[in-house]
Amino acid sequence: MSHTIRDKQKLIARVRRLKGQIEGIERALEAEKPCGEILRQLASARGAMSGLTAEVMEDHLREHVLQAETDAERRQGGEELIGAIRTYMK
Amino acid sequence: MSHTIRDKQKLIARVRRLKGQIEGIERALEAEKPCGEILRQLASARGAMSGLTAEVMEDHLREHVLQAETDAERRQGGEELIGAIRTYMK
Amino acid sequence: MSHTIRDKQKLIARVRRLKGQIEGIERALEAEKPCGEILRQLASARGAMSGLTAEVMEDHLREHVLQAETDAERRQGGEELIGAIRTYMK
Amino acid sequence: MSHTIRDKQKLIARVRRLKGQIEGIERALEAEKPCGEILRQLASARGAMSGLTAEVMEDHLREHVLQAETDAERRQGGEELIGAIRTYMK
Repeated sequence: MSHTIRDKQKLIARVRRLKGQIEGIERALEAEKPCGEILRQLASARGAMSGLTAEVMEDHLREHVLQAETDAERRQGGEELIGAIRTYMK
Repeated sequence: MSHTIRDKQKLIARVRRLKGQIEGIERALEAEKPCGEILRQLASARGAMSGLTAEVMEDHLREHVLQAETDAERRQGGEELIGAIRTYMK
Repeated sequence: MSHTIRDKQKLIARVRRLKGQIEGIERALEAEKPCGEILRQLASARGAMSGLTAEVMEDHLREHVLQAETDAERRQGGEELIGAIRTYMK
Repeated sequence: MSHTIRDKQKLIARVRRLKGQIEGIERALEAEKPCGEILRQLASARGAMSGLTAEVMEDHLREHVLQAETDAERRQGGEELIGAIRTYMK
């Protein structure tokens, strides 16, 4: 993923926040917190993961499709995105 | 979450595997791995998170609804599950 | 699905609205409407379908689990819901 | 959606099959079929709708991004797809 430095830093910050949410779920399970609370934490982490995935897809589309330097590069970037969309929607 | 010890250990093992997958995504972003690879890792982590959520819902239904000791407990457990299903499907 | 008459009418009204949305997508495809518009219609129909699914699950939990008349009926209703949750989250 | 005639016919065939599945759910609700069966039909219709959405996104990417005739058209097609991905993943 040869995205811009700025995009990269943003994505890494997001994945670290997501890791923090997962660690929160781990602690809640260990502390035997109420189920309803754990389910809310899971829903929130799932939203964070979907947002991260949308952002990686968007960055990929910008860098490897819209700003591709050759037609071949653009085609390959497009096929990778199609593969990701298909996997995601299965 | 006052589930059985065995269920609890299983859930904690699952959440730790999920954390390992998120750390793998963090490393892949830092190493600027190809986008397609990162999107595959995200899809796989998303599957793991959905599976974990389904298992928490299932355990909750078993412990706090099917095996509830009083009607009031059962009703409350049921309402919590309904809340979780609604949040998940929004 | 032996739910209450009122629940049944509500669910049938919802599924008919959903059918109307699908017919709108069919017309939009035939009229070669812009892609972006079709994708918005699809997102909206998906939301309607998720809401309908959540309501069927909720009605099922109320009628066949919380208000079950025997323990055997409750267990069976619970297993059906677990199956539905697992399928949905796969 | 000015996609190729062949793509258009394929998408219309898919949306009609989906409409048939929704009509099946309507009939099942009217006939008071078992909940478990209705939930299976809903899961199957949801899969069909996700597959249709992935195909519309894929066609859009091919026609309006990869094969765009101008940079402006490509940029616009890309932004529409980004909007759709964001809406879908919310």
